[in-house]
Amino acid sequence: MKVRLIIMLKQGVLDPQGKAINHALHNLSFEEVQDVRVGRVIDLEVTETSSEKAKARATEMAQQLLANGVIEDFQVEVLT
Amino acid sequence: MKVRLIIMLKQGVLDPQGKAINHALHNLSFEEVQDVRVGRVIDLEVTETSSEKAKARATEMAQQLLANGVIEDFQVEVLT
Repeated sequence: MKVRLIIMLKQGVLDPQGKAINHALHNLSFEEVQDVRVGRVIDLEVTETSSEKAKARATEMAQQLLANGVIEDFQVEVLT
Repeated sequence: MKVRLIIMLKQGVLDPQGKAINHALHNLSFEEVQDVRVGRVIDLEVTETSSEKAKARATEMAQQLLANGVIEDFQVEVLT
């Protein structure tokens, strides 16, 4: 089973990488871009067969290791 | 309108970051993890009102700047 974690900076946390990308996109004349936020995707291939259990374990992994709870939020999605 | 770009390494491209995370998860006794792939999420806030146009423009942005076409694939999703 494949579980996807999407980890983003919390609202209000400054995202310098996003600012830099926004600036670069404007230089390439993508004027419609107003804001850019950058985060991480982590796809986990697990042997678990129950999606509830897989989701719960992925949440544990995010809390223990993969996400910094002070400045990041995360979402868990079961892909397959 | 918010458009999400998910940029992942192509299948077959070595992902050392994923390997390191896999190893760390096993050290925390998450034995069910078999493989880990890491990618980037880029959320774009754009003034475009048509989702087709927003998707097309985000694809252009990915092709011109945000994704490295040699080693990365990307998906575009309209969030709101």
